Amino acid sequence: MYIGIDVGGTNLKAGLVDDTGTLVKVERVPLDFQGPEPFARTLAELAGKVMAEKVRWVGVGLPGAVDGGDVRFTTNIPMENIPLEKLFRRHLDLPLLLGNDADCAAVGEFFGGAGRGTKDFAVITLGTGVGAGLIVNGRLRGGAASSEAGHIVIRQGGEPCNCGRRGCWERYASATGLIARTKRAMEDHPESALHQFAAGKGVEGRTAFQAAEAGDETALAVCRDYVNDLASGLASLINILRPEAVAIGGGVAAAPERLLLEPLREAVAQESFSRHGGRVTRILPAELGNDAGIIGAAMLGRVM
Amino acid sequence: MYIGIDVGGTNLKAGLVDDTGTLVKVERVPLDFQGPEPFARTLAELAGKVMAEKVRWVGVGLPGAVDGGDVRFTTNIPMENIPLEKLFRRHLDLPLLLGNDADCAAVGEFFGGAGRGTKDFAVITLGTGVGAGLIVNGRLRGGAASSEAGHIVIRQGGEPCNCGRRGCWERYASATGLIARTKRAMEDHPESALHQFAAGKGVEGRTAFQAAEAGDETALAVCRDYVNDLASGLASLINILRPEAVAIGGGVAAAPERLLLEPLREAVAQESFSRHGGRVTRILPAELGNDAGIIGAAMLGRVM
Repeated sequence: MYIGIDVGGTNLKAGLVDDTGTLVKVERVPLDFQGPEPFARTLAELAGKVMAEKVRWVGVGLPGAVDGGDVRFTTNIPMENIPLEKLFRRHLDLPLLLGNDADCAAVGEFFGGAGRGTKDFAVITLGTGVGAGLIVNGRLRGGAASSEAGHIVIRQGGEPCNCGRRGCWERYASATGLIARTKRAMEDHPESALHQFAAGKGVEGRTAFQAAEAGDETALAVCRDYVNDLASGLASLINILRPEAVAIGGGVAAAPERLLLEPLREAVAQESFSRHGGRVTRILPAELGNDAGIIGAAMLGRVM
Repeated sequence: MYIGIDVGGTNLKAGLVDDTGTLVKVERVPLDFQGPEPFARTLAELAGKVMAEKVRWVGVGLPGAVDGGDVRFTTNIPMENIPLEKLFRRHLDLPLLLGNDADCAAVGEFFGGAGRGTKDFAVITLGTGVGAGLIVNGRLRGGAASSEAGHIVIRQGGEPCNCGRRGCWERYASATGLIARTKRAMEDHPESALHQFAAGKGVEGRTAFQAAEAGDETALAVCRDYVNDLASGLASLINILRPEAVAIGGGVAAAPERLLLEPLREAVAQESFSRHGGRVTRILPAELGNDAGIIGAAMLGRVM
């Protein structure tokens, strides 16, 4: 048995996971960050709540960068170069395995979701940014080698990215990028149904897909351009690594298949090298939703 | 002991390679392709010329795509879906291992050159195209998973590529791309010293670097733009895979370090995610030159 903890924006969720990657028990507490030492104690206490016999390690997934048992930085809470495993072991004497959240999502899908049965697999998470987790030959590209595939440039000299480059894939293919292009389309097209779909709640990642479903031409064009940019980076990733399957996760992945995955598959088939031979990569929806993070954190020790 | 055979444009070169990746004997014959069956016999005869006791397999590197013991296609000779290992074993009863030439170069450098001591390593070969060979966690991405990193798009909607995409890295970063941009600069700048350096022999990959060495401004600008495009794709590859080291090989890699590798390292350092943490990838010159292919072919069975 393994314990996984998903450190989200507002909650910590811990789960007990069995050998097959099935979540058998879940507990959660609000994230109330008071510094690294109390945080390590909270992790240990939360793990205690789902503890069972023969738990071999506790895995933790968090947004940021990790290296071995150390947290290099996190994007939601202020931690920098913290020896989290060392702090944790003062309270609970089990190995603490750390993973970036996108990497944990990939590991979760690899064992219990869209990646089952593969050896070479990637999950692309479309959220605030474009997260990527890669499994190559059954091993996670984790820790200091964790993939930053959101930061491949698809348009030289394009929009500036927080990472320092211009034209990064994540500027165009993230939910944030989709929202930005939806807003631009609304400014240019006051007649578009996008305005009705955004009324009250503001523009969300799903707005363009909802209006496109209703047949709005402007929204359809937004979705088309979005999918083309998503396909551009994805085809490059696939040409480099040629995995067996890529799963698409994150909020945007809930869009109707005929507006997202179907045209994405078509565009990637056109753009990827497999049309000349070699492995054809399947493009799938992620299956586990929010559970991927807990399950993947718990299974980290199986892919390291 | 292992035997490696490098199938080049005009010659077949076979080498006997020891456990340390050292080439101990070489033989060559002209490439005279008369069809797959005589070709398989030629490979067996050539292997016989460097044969020693305890040879475990014969590895063959060729430009094209392979899958297991089959050749999917080759770019220099007309073979398509040929069961080469089966044909070979009629003449010599040893396993025949097949590799793409860029992959063999990576394996050669991994054991005997710039990649020694690493587990995650890539070779980028700047020639007619941009070849890429990837070693991940000590295993080659070979066969049907062989990398086509030359076909990542760095400029959406850019120059059309033979692969069907537009704006592929190899259109800009190959020797072919360098020659094309050198010719364009010569048209725009009749006063440039590029014309003197190209006189008699025509424009080559080295022409821009030679004129830049002599201080020609136009040539310096050509080299600068070339290095920036090389860096753009390389930083994307590095952000995805985060290898320990990347070696640059092929004819262009012979350019003076201060005009090629030094500015390349600077640009990649600016563009790659490691400035925010994680692994910093070293950028090195390939060391083995033409021997990389033979040594890598011989060592294929060690990284499969």
